[in-house]
Amino acid sequence: MLTAQKLPTSVNGVAVDRLFLRSMLSKLSRPIAKFKFRIRNQWETGSRNRSSVSTFTGANQELSHPKPFSLEADEPAILLGMDMAANPVEYLLHALASCLTTSMVYHASARGIHIEQVESSFEGDLDLHGFLDLNPSVRKGYQGIRILFKISANVPDDQLREIVQLGTEHSPVFDSLTNGVPVSITAERL
Amino acid sequence: MLTAQKLPTSVNGVAVDRLFLRSMLSKLSRPIAKFKFRIRNQWETGSRNRSSVSTFTGANQELSHPKPFSLEADEPAILLGMDMAANPVEYLLHALASCLTTSMVYHASARGIHIEQVESSFEGDLDLHGFLDLNPSVRKGYQGIRILFKISANVPDDQLREIVQLGTEHSPVFDSLTNGVPVSITAERL
Repeated sequence: MLTAQKLPTSVNGVAVDRLFLRSMLSKLSRPIAKFKFRIRNQWETGSRNRSSVSTFTGANQELSHPKPFSLEADEPAILLGMDMAANPVEYLLHALASCLTTSMVYHASARGIHIEQVESSFEGDLDLHGFLDLNPSVRKGYQGIRILFKISANVPDDQLREIVQLGTEHSPVFDSLTNGVPVSITAERL
Repeated sequence: MLTAQKLPTSVNGVAVDRLFLRSMLSKLSRPIAKFKFRIRNQWETGSRNRSSVSTFTGANQELSHPKPFSLEADEPAILLGMDMAANPVEYLLHALASCLTTSMVYHASARGIHIEQVESSFEGDLDLHGFLDLNPSVRKGYQGIRILFKISANVPDDQLREIVQLGTEHSPVFDSLTNGVPVSITAERL
């Protein structure tokens, strides 16, 4: 006897029924999948500045977060700051970690894979000979980033690697950071 | 009559005397300029996870921030989150904005250029056809990022552009994001 099969509504805290719905919607209308994310930044003094994250565009609408998020940045004392907040290259690691984790969890959820725990550590190498113009052959940016993911999920060991690959294959920040992004800049007087 | 010239100790809130000292130190000993930045991330549920920013390596020492910084991430409702925090691609824009601003201010300060105000806005384009696997020719990451810098400084108009270039030429996040970074990943069972 055939019974109607009900899709699970939530896996790993992700509303997968809505994820499937969104996929169908996106097939129907291309512009609905186009998003614009934005921030505004204000310099305070020295190494300190602050971004406000308030509005974005998505699904053909101008949207807002319920309240603007304020993100501070500073540098540690050894880099001439007051150490009141994480520094920009630490924020870059957070962007990468959070994006890989969310991408992994979303795509695992869409496949019905139950994940219990995810912890990860990220470390990047920077040689200040680049930033300080002391050696033109040393790049300014990270020379490399090492990631360790620790995952608790009800899958065999070889599928742990596949779960992580769901992250690297889909994460917007991972793609942006490993493949590069074109950036255009305008400057004007305030 | 010759008088001893005293270097300014602080320009734009940056202790430039220490910046010069650091440059000299870096010439003397290569390892002192090698830094490692790191974070640890923990998944909470669905789109929510959190990074802890605590220790780093620099100038041949293991160093700590005075207290660990905790950075949350979430997604807006339209992307199946609870909208409790900025999302990963917004954090990426903050990392870029804060790094360009600090790099610009540090290098302008080292040249004795006084900056009064810096404001900037950053916007990036994401097409979710990539993330949702609906079109393999659409990239997962940002297709492009547009930046507008507004600067108040006592320089002629053509030097405004040069001040911004001090940022793009030195910023570790700008270099990382425009040129790409090699990333290595290990996965293990928690």
